Amino acid sequence: MRRSRITPEREAELYAAVLDLLREVGYEALTMDAIAARTKSSKATLYRQWGSKPELIVRALRANKPVSIEDIDTGSLRGDLLESANRSDDCQMERDAALMRSLFHAIHENPELHQALRQLLIEPEITGLNELLRRAVERGEVAADNPALDYVIHMMVGGFVARDLIEDRTVDREFLRSYIDAVILPALGV
Amino acid sequence: MRRSRITPEREAELYAAVLDLLREVGYEALTMDAIAARTKSSKATLYRQWGSKPELIVRALRANKPVSIEDIDTGSLRGDLLESANRSDDCQMERDAALMRSLFHAIHENPELHQALRQLLIEPEITGLNELLRRAVERGEVAADNPALDYVIHMMVGGFVARDLIEDRTVDREFLRSYIDAVILPALGV
Repeated sequence: MRRSRITPEREAELYAAVLDLLREVGYEALTMDAIAARTKSSKATLYRQWGSKPELIVRALRANKPVSIEDIDTGSLRGDLLESANRSDDCQMERDAALMRSLFHAIHENPELHQALRQLLIEPEITGLNELLRRAVERGEVAADNPALDYVIHMMVGGFVARDLIEDRTVDREFLRSYIDAVILPALGV
Repeated sequence: MRRSRITPEREAELYAAVLDLLREVGYEALTMDAIAARTKSSKATLYRQWGSKPELIVRALRANKPVSIEDIDTGSLRGDLLESANRSDDCQMERDAALMRSLFHAIHENPELHQALRQLLIEPEITGLNELLRRAVERGEVAADNPALDYVIHMMVGGFVARDLIEDRTVDREFLRSYIDAVILPALGV
């Protein structure tokens, strides 16, 4: 066991510090030296335990549990979407947005990293969203052949990114609520 | 004149090389050494002429003319949006997407860079889009108080980014056409 000498608490603490550093400086500028300094580890230990920077970051991402929306079921699509917007507090949204920003270029160069980000942050979101949408179709709220069904995730991502990029503000619950009512429900014909 | 010894052709060539390098490695990993090697300049020249990495990159961005959509006027909103999707070829879209990716984290740390990106790539897009939408409202195609009017740019950005992030494919004209019909026009009630 390579990691046997580290306690789970110490490991969790180290991963949290790695993600904080990643949000601050971005993937490309993040060095093993900086990680060693921030986590008060030796570089030799980091390399011995995790092998490389991408491996360490992938592990840190895997230890970072995303907010789940899969159990939401309020009985209406609008209720489900608004409830999913309420699941993360504004601070959590800012932290997730910073994580995405920090990795956005790097994932194109590093398939393993892209895969980890996809599995950990993107796929649970898509699975949860598809479940809400499936039920809305079942209840007859949305037509099964509505072409916007394939693009709900695109609209959602757009809300997050454009707010950041254009308005220079992070998404918060209030924005998400008005975006859901102005854009997502009308596109779905609700 | 600091730049008097460089011909305009040489300057344009250098800026193009800087942007290529930026797309390849991202802002954080882009060094003045790499720029010097790629452009066959000395680092001393680069610093003398441009002062710093952010200044050089801002200049290079300013030299990169975006595709304009301001003159589009087909007589219908659908026609205008589809025409604007046709303005860039698929290759240009990929290049713009790569540029956005490379700068996405850096602009949060560097207000001057954010301002340049905003002025050069984002604001012309928003101005052009708002003009198309203004005419659609004038023609009675879209209600003046439709709340989705404020979020068309968010939906558009979502199409670009989510395609990249989730589907691992770059936006192309075909995708944009179906996205416009499935999402943007229905959200606007068209």
